Amino acid sequence: LLPRARSSQESVFARMSRLAAQHGAVNLGQGFPSGAPPAFLLEAARRAVGTADQYAPPAGLPALRDALGADLGVDGADIVVTTGATEAMGLLAQALYGPDDEVLMLEPVFDIYLPQARLAGATPVTVPLRLTAEGGWTLDLDELRAAVTPRTRALLLNSPHNPTGRVLTREELEAVVTLARQHDLWLISDEVYDELYFEERPTSLRALAPERTFTVGSAGKRLEATGWRVGWVACPPGQAGPVAALRQLASFCAPTPFQVAVAAALPLARQSGFYEGLREGYAARLHLLARGLRDLGAEVFLPGGTYFLMARRPGWEAEVLVEQAGVAVIPGEAFAPSQALPPGLLRLAFCKSAGELEEALARLERFC
Amino acid sequence: LLPRARSSQESVFARMSRLAAQHGAVNLGQGFPSGAPPAFLLEAARRAVGTADQYAPPAGLPALRDALGADLGVDGADIVVTTGATEAMGLLAQALYGPDDEVLMLEPVFDIYLPQARLAGATPVTVPLRLTAEGGWTLDLDELRAAVTPRTRALLLNSPHNPTGRVLTREELEAVVTLARQHDLWLISDEVYDELYFEERPTSLRALAPERTFTVGSAGKRLEATGWRVGWVACPPGQAGPVAALRQLASFCAPTPFQVAVAAALPLARQSGFYEGLREGYAARLHLLARGLRDLGAEVFLPGGTYFLMARRPGWEAEVLVEQAGVAVIPGEAFAPSQALPPGLLRLAFCKSAGELEEALARLERFC
Ligand SMILES: CSCCC(=O)C(=O)O
Ligand SMILES: CSCCC(=O)C(=O)O
Repeated sequence: LLPRARSSQESVFARMSRLAAQHGAVNLGQGFPSGAPPAFLLEAARRAVGTADQYAPPAGLPALRDALGADLGVDGADIVVTTGATEAMGLLAQALYGPDDEVLMLEPVFDIYLPQARLAGATPVTVPLRLTAEGGWTLDLDELRAAVTPRTRALLLNSPHNPTGRVLTREELEAVVTLARQHDLWLISDEVYDELYFEERPTSLRALAPERTFTVGSAGKRLEATGWRVGWVACPPGQAGPVAALRQLASFCAPTPFQVAVAAALPLARQSGFYEGLREGYAARLHLLARGLRDLGAEVFLPGGTYFLMARRPGWEAEVLVEQAGVAVIPGEAFAPSQALPPGLLRLAFCKSAGELEEALARLERFC
Repeated sequence: LLPRARSSQESVFARMSRLAAQHGAVNLGQGFPSGAPPAFLLEAARRAVGTADQYAPPAGLPALRDALGADLGVDGADIVVTTGATEAMGLLAQALYGPDDEVLMLEPVFDIYLPQARLAGATPVTVPLRLTAEGGWTLDLDELRAAVTPRTRALLLNSPHNPTGRVLTREELEAVVTLARQHDLWLISDEVYDELYFEERPTSLRALAPERTFTVGSAGKRLEATGWRVGWVACPPGQAGPVAALRQLASFCAPTPFQVAVAAALPLARQSGFYEGLREGYAARLHLLARGLRDLGAEVFLPGGTYFLMARRPGWEAEVLVEQAGVAVIPGEAFAPSQALPPGLLRLAFCKSAGELEEALARLERFC
């Protein structure tokens, strides 16, 4: 096989889920809920199965593009439905990055962005989010500005940020937009956790720079069905056509029955207060886990959004915990290709049942 | 956007389905059944929705890899589950072709192979299947041999062949294998129509050259659910790892509930005689359509497999038929980048209900 295939590795998420299964560990690694999706989504899917089972148009079913447009406040014609957000991010790499291009990203960095950029021939350049003495994460805007070179083509952000949970402020995003306009950079905004926040509602980057922002979203994250593979990109006006054309070559279309179900569920979720309930439930589990970890002597860094927190405690290492404690977590280093992260950090997912979180805490206590 | 995005075009299948909807045409263009998938598959999917809704391992659910292994007679560990066969073909292009490589394909050529090869940086080189005076399609093995250069890296076949329906004989495949071994070429065998044949059962290329053949298959084609996005690659022993690693970057995993459903359905389909019934049903519709077209004065070229036939009649053109006759078909030229095809050929799909085929024939009669 070619070097690009040989050098591709199992992602840390797949690896830790595999190890969790192998060791019978409670899986606080990969970010997927252990519960089922909401009943209104399941019912819509069961109805769609048997009635909408053949190819959809590559850009997505019109009903879903319209529902997304209404939900996001954009024109449905600017939306391309993808096979999950992972595919959306890969398509944008193919569409926007070429050989010799540089792409700016924040580090810690979601592990999949790097090989996707390299597969497109580009060089990822990371700018650190630094852990402060108070346990927050700062972005040094001067450092970001200094990282721009004549070869920089795009700036990739995700807010709420995975793995730190940091939500970028409106002021930070405005500075990013100014920079992008000065250097004519594309902006890629991975907002799969847009409905999962614990303080103020995160600002969507597109609101500040609609002409250059590609926003990526995920029905899997929003509606608790990560295995259904329905994601999307909201493109700057006029750019959806070429993205949809590339999308055909990637996987032709997203699963049709789940597109139908998500189209029906999006307005229901919005009207019924589903997202508010989701946030309340997650806030409770966040505090359950954070409290439990602190009781065990761990230092905990609370997220502003996502369903992950970061923590550390001397003696806790992901490889050891999965085998010896029976708890799977993601090692911070997996997000830190340039070692720009203080050592010993772990990412723990709290999108699991309270029972699982309690079991994980009990196992960690026994391990201590 | 980059040239590779700007130059990507809507595929002819998406385009003709869009025009069919726009003009209220009977859609004999894109290859998807107009009926629903079989009840045993639907039931399995409705059961899986609500119980298996989160990420699957990127290489596929173990139950599905095992079911495919048993069905295809290969080791489940050599199988990578993909988001449909389109993704499988794209991944193989990324894994096997590099810049400056040439890839041999048969022409007429399934339209998606070409841009997938180009996206990987490679040059597709086509070798013609020629229409004989008797209405069959011949492959000139000397022409194939002569097309190999020091830069040839892979040979892509599909049998049953889309759009001609030609099934390659065992002798032809043996000659291909000899050639591939002489020049150390990878073999990519798109066998999505492996269960759709009207004469002898097609030989699977892997049986002749397991060490170098990647076989692509499709649950959508076999089980009449093209919108469910479950496909696969059976890799040469030891090659599944890197293909699965690339697969994570493409769309992480295929839809989990449909993986569960297909895993349950594959042995049922085999044991219950589902494929025999499928072939009988298709044979009847093939002859209904072929007879009707001949009655209208068209020349019809019968397929050995697939659910497509090719036909021509003076005055019939795809662009005109969809608008003026209310019948969507695929123009032969869409498969003929080097114009190696006699003009006027059309591809018609007969994976539609008898009622739709009759309606299409009635409309064509009115148009004549
Ligand atoms: C696509 S697998 C990764 C899932 C996830 O979002 C995470 O664990 O960070
Ligand atoms: C992936 S869309 C093409 C469907 C098909 O197999 C065809 O019409 O040839």
